[in-house]
Amino acid sequence: MRPMIEDIEVRAREELFINIHPIQAAGRLTPEAMKAIISYGDGYSTCDRCRKPFRLDKISRPPINDFHVELAEFIGMDHARVVPGARRGFQAVVSSLVEKGDSVIVSALAHYSEFLAVEAAGGVVKEVPLNPDSIIAGEGTAQKIEEVKHETGRFPKLIMMDHFDYLFGNEHDIHGIAKVAKDYAIPFLANCAYSLGVMPINGKELGADFLVGSGHKSFASPAPSGIVATTDEWADKVFRTTKMVGDVTGRRFGIKEVEMMGCTLMGSNLIAMMASFPRVRERVKKWSEEVEKINYFVDEFLKIEGNKVISEMPRKHTLTKVDTTGSFDKIARTHKRRGFFFSDELKKRRIVGGFAGATRQWKLNTYGLSWDQIRYLTCAFHDIASKYGINVA
Amino acid sequence: MRPMIEDIEVRAREELFINIHPIQAAGRLTPEAMKAIISYGDGYSTCDRCRKPFRLDKISRPPINDFHVELAEFIGMDHARVVPGARRGFQAVVSSLVEKGDSVIVSALAHYSEFLAVEAAGGVVKEVPLNPDSIIAGEGTAQKIEEVKHETGRFPKLIMMDHFDYLFGNEHDIHGIAKVAKDYAIPFLANCAYSLGVMPINGKELGADFLVGSGHKSFASPAPSGIVATTDEWADKVFRTTKMVGDVTGRRFGIKEVEMMGCTLMGSNLIAMMASFPRVRERVKKWSEEVEKINYFVDEFLKIEGNKVISEMPRKHTLTKVDTTGSFDKIARTHKRRGFFFSDELKKRRIVGGFAGATRQWKLNTYGLSWDQIRYLTCAFHDIASKYGINVA
Repeated sequence: MRPMIEDIEVRAREELFINIHPIQAAGRLTPEAMKAIISYGDGYSTCDRCRKPFRLDKISRPPINDFHVELAEFIGMDHARVVPGARRGFQAVVSSLVEKGDSVIVSALAHYSEFLAVEAAGGVVKEVPLNPDSIIAGEGTAQKIEEVKHETGRFPKLIMMDHFDYLFGNEHDIHGIAKVAKDYAIPFLANCAYSLGVMPINGKELGADFLVGSGHKSFASPAPSGIVATTDEWADKVFRTTKMVGDVTGRRFGIKEVEMMGCTLMGSNLIAMMASFPRVRERVKKWSEEVEKINYFVDEFLKIEGNKVISEMPRKHTLTKVDTTGSFDKIARTHKRRGFFFSDELKKRRIVGGFAGATRQWKLNTYGLSWDQIRYLTCAFHDIASKYGINVA
Repeated sequence: MRPMIEDIEVRAREELFINIHPIQAAGRLTPEAMKAIISYGDGYSTCDRCRKPFRLDKISRPPINDFHVELAEFIGMDHARVVPGARRGFQAVVSSLVEKGDSVIVSALAHYSEFLAVEAAGGVVKEVPLNPDSIIAGEGTAQKIEEVKHETGRFPKLIMMDHFDYLFGNEHDIHGIAKVAKDYAIPFLANCAYSLGVMPINGKELGADFLVGSGHKSFASPAPSGIVATTDEWADKVFRTTKMVGDVTGRRFGIKEVEMMGCTLMGSNLIAMMASFPRVRERVKKWSEEVEKINYFVDEFLKIEGNKVISEMPRKHTLTKVDTTGSFDKIARTHKRRGFFFSDELKKRRIVGGFAGATRQWKLNTYGLSWDQIRYLTCAFHDIASKYGINVA
């Protein structure tokens, strides 16, 4: 039997490198969250003082109940719950609203976990195509709703759209889509996995009936962690409490919410979210500076001959898809390390997080880097280009 | 706005006290797990080297794939997955097997999360009553199946039974129930939340089609974490991969498993499970000593006049329900601190984890205490009894 524990490396890439991994940037723990997981790592650590009515979000020491109230307020919704990842938020909403054979409108860039949530409920996804700018807008959504109605005879049961998508990090027209949803009286879930926790988000202002966020993606929290929130109108549906009665014992567990499976996100992950919350609350106010930094970076990046940015320009998000087929990939074609030459060069300069070996289309994320780090990153790219004889304007 | 972070106390009860909390004992982190969460706390920490086919349980650095294989072997099943808590394991199995209106056989001591899993799928729980020894046996299960058939015209779709229940910590006749399940050809889920990780468990020997365990309850892991495992026969059903196709883009995510919502338990929780695994593997071999210790404790506990043990005797599990109505509760009735006098006295002696204020029926768990701690615990109970004039034999 292998002593597997020795194969678990000490992970130190945030300490030793500049990490531009597309999905890791905004999930790095704050120092407070790190302290919290050390203190609350043990299994049922949040249950020390669980009292009536015996539900996690009602616990007052540590102040889990206050956190739930303040979290809902922070994101402009009436009710919030924490769940093991955004996907469990999709699952809860879809499972509450969608019956077998029902249609759910999603984006042509929908995350796969949205597909799975619909599939698990027996529904069918109906994608809204991107407009020529690679954006989902209200118009396309309305058109798709009509098509679904025409094709199936019934309106879709839910519209689920990404605020920023996982592929390009493009901003989609949530306001326009929300307006269409309202016109058709179809409930609307805004997937804010890439926005809630990094920029100011107000669900009601967005026009969302449901808001989903990711702790490990954008809330400086450990995986799995996520947020699902809703309005007074929908809370009784999605956060409905159990009605099941034991036929022999007559037992009822009335306070437990069915879709939450009772108590939701427990333990160190929850306490870490709570511990990161004050900093998250502050950091969203500085989003415009994050956007400024990514735009500075891509402007410099585009000075390298052959480089392209596939995401919308100017950037509205730090997650960005680029194309280096006309630059670094040309080198890769004849280099003995192939595409790895590029990740090697970055790593030598203490930069990690690009997809190792990729020199055509790949993603990066500059969230949370300081201006010094951004400038260093920029220089590193120019430097590698120069080293291999690629022109830098 | 309240500086909520200052209200999060540093949790140190495992360092400063003997903790007899009923559900916390076997979820305390190992030192290895503690190191693991410090190293892997950041959100998507497990995804540094995610390569094709892009699924968590296929990642080889850290050795997540090996862990899955060895975990399945350790529990005597063909396939294992990690999930955010045992309840997400129930949900996955029930959602795969149960349609609206279907019956699911559960125990009269079923955990509420089993109720919720059935309710979420639109099913109905049918409880098997306890026999006079407060045990669920094969006989009662068979009888209940017949009743359900008689009442609804259809056989139940699933039998879901607790190996040890949450209330008494009694051992139920999993072998007998499994045999009945086989006779009726009804799939059988063994809920081993209180056994997997503390005692040797072999799912196939138990006759289970599905095995569910809890990381934060019994596998020395942070919450939420859990295990769901199955046989070759059922793997394609419960771990079925997505068939959904994007109608516009033609996108498929074929490798992702629907009930797992794609990638399952990520991040520090998973790595902590992996880090605790070698010790868990060893500690299950010492289960008989844990049983010896709880029996020593209850024997001494029963020397206090008026004390009772409600759980089956002799104890087969460290989780135990006791009744002190005839002893400490008599004192509580006239004490100015009421029932809190008892928790005060325990706390003075550096013992925590009983339900504060409870002096009638309450639960404790001695799992993981050393012999010295067990003897100290015993003395503390005798000492408190003597102090208040209760006879100790």
